[in-house]
Amino acid sequence: MGFMGAISKDGLNIANKSREIVKNKIKDVLGGKINDFNEEEMGIIERVVHATADPEYAKLLVFKNNPIVEGIKAIKEKKPIIVDVNMIKAGIRYDNVKCFIDHPDVFEIAKKEGITRAVASMRLAKDLIDDGIVVIGNAPTALFEVIRLIKEEDIYPRLVIGVPVGFVQATESKEELRKLNISNISTVGPKGGTPVAVSIINGIIAYAKKGKA
Amino acid sequence: MGFMGAISKDGLNIANKSREIVKNKIKDVLGGKINDFNEEEMGIIERVVHATADPEYAKLLVFKNNPIVEGIKAIKEKKPIIVDVNMIKAGIRYDNVKCFIDHPDVFEIAKKEGITRAVASMRLAKDLIDDGIVVIGNAPTALFEVIRLIKEEDIYPRLVIGVPVGFVQATESKEELRKLNISNISTVGPKGGTPVAVSIINGIIAYAKKGKA
Repeated sequence: MGFMGAISKDGLNIANKSREIVKNKIKDVLGGKINDFNEEEMGIIERVVHATADPEYAKLLVFKNNPIVEGIKAIKEKKPIIVDVNMIKAGIRYDNVKCFIDHPDVFEIAKKEGITRAVASMRLAKDLIDDGIVVIGNAPTALFEVIRLIKEEDIYPRLVIGVPVGFVQATESKEELRKLNISNISTVGPKGGTPVAVSIINGIIAYAKKGKA
Repeated sequence: MGFMGAISKDGLNIANKSREIVKNKIKDVLGGKINDFNEEEMGIIERVVHATADPEYAKLLVFKNNPIVEGIKAIKEKKPIIVDVNMIKAGIRYDNVKCFIDHPDVFEIAKKEGITRAVASMRLAKDLIDDGIVVIGNAPTALFEVIRLIKEEDIYPRLVIGVPVGFVQATESKEELRKLNISNISTVGPKGGTPVAVSIINGIIAYAKKGKA
């Protein structure tokens, strides 16, 4: 399969043409700052702009503490990926992806403790998050809970991709994530979402399969 | 469950605060044009801006041929929803959603005929698309195939939500969709994607459950 899962000639032509346009849009947005990113980071930025048709993401993505190399290592070790919503699970090309948002215990915990289902789902996944990969593309509260687990309960994920979307708490949750000493990829401001999350983690999985890092 | 599936007090507070901000952002973007939309359309616009944190969508969404009323009717009749990618299927709160992109026949047809998997998946779904609802959030070629089925093969979907994303063919495919005499919802330009598609169709499903129209 070619870029973005294309198998037909039409599919490949579209993917190649799109890639060309995406590269140029990123150049326009980043200007001289394009040299701030290494080749692997640029590959991830391209995927996100491709998935959203929104070149602004080139300015919004932040890579902290060597996240791509750490992510590739964790994928090669077949570590689990814990996600906040099923849409992300459906988009990731990897066998070991876990989402607890619809787990019966999550409904119970959320109601009883007055927390969001997203928070409850991360709390339930605690043992998998330790030494695993976390991908959050929807709920800021889920990201805050992961940050709390790291700070208060000595949970140490190998990589956190934190790109929750929205005007309430999303910006703040990602700022807190970037202060941590763990490997993370995030966006600045309210933008983010499931296609952003999925394109980042699928990019890292693709690198791992190609034997990068 | 409250707005956006919130069940906890925290979840409801976030959802309500977010809704407030979203409404204001939409007002800023639309100005006087806010009166161009009816209450149900505004509800859909709010969901899309909520899902993307991108208020520009208020200017990009187009409703043609009474799509919300037609969509609600089709949902109440339990018509199937045919989608282009599994991420959309995972996000829709409805029992009868079909996605053929990973169907073995689709790989065969795509390779043999030199078409994209997305096109092959729509061709395979032809009989379900007739009198059903189509939701396309990723592949412009899938939307072009649906348009071809409508024009050349007398297939008549009740509603087409066409919001494929990308810099190649997405804009053009949506322009062609808007020329048709069927009920449709689309975006102007390259932007769109799975969260846009999912929030539109889930909004219509929510209306149908509340007994609107």
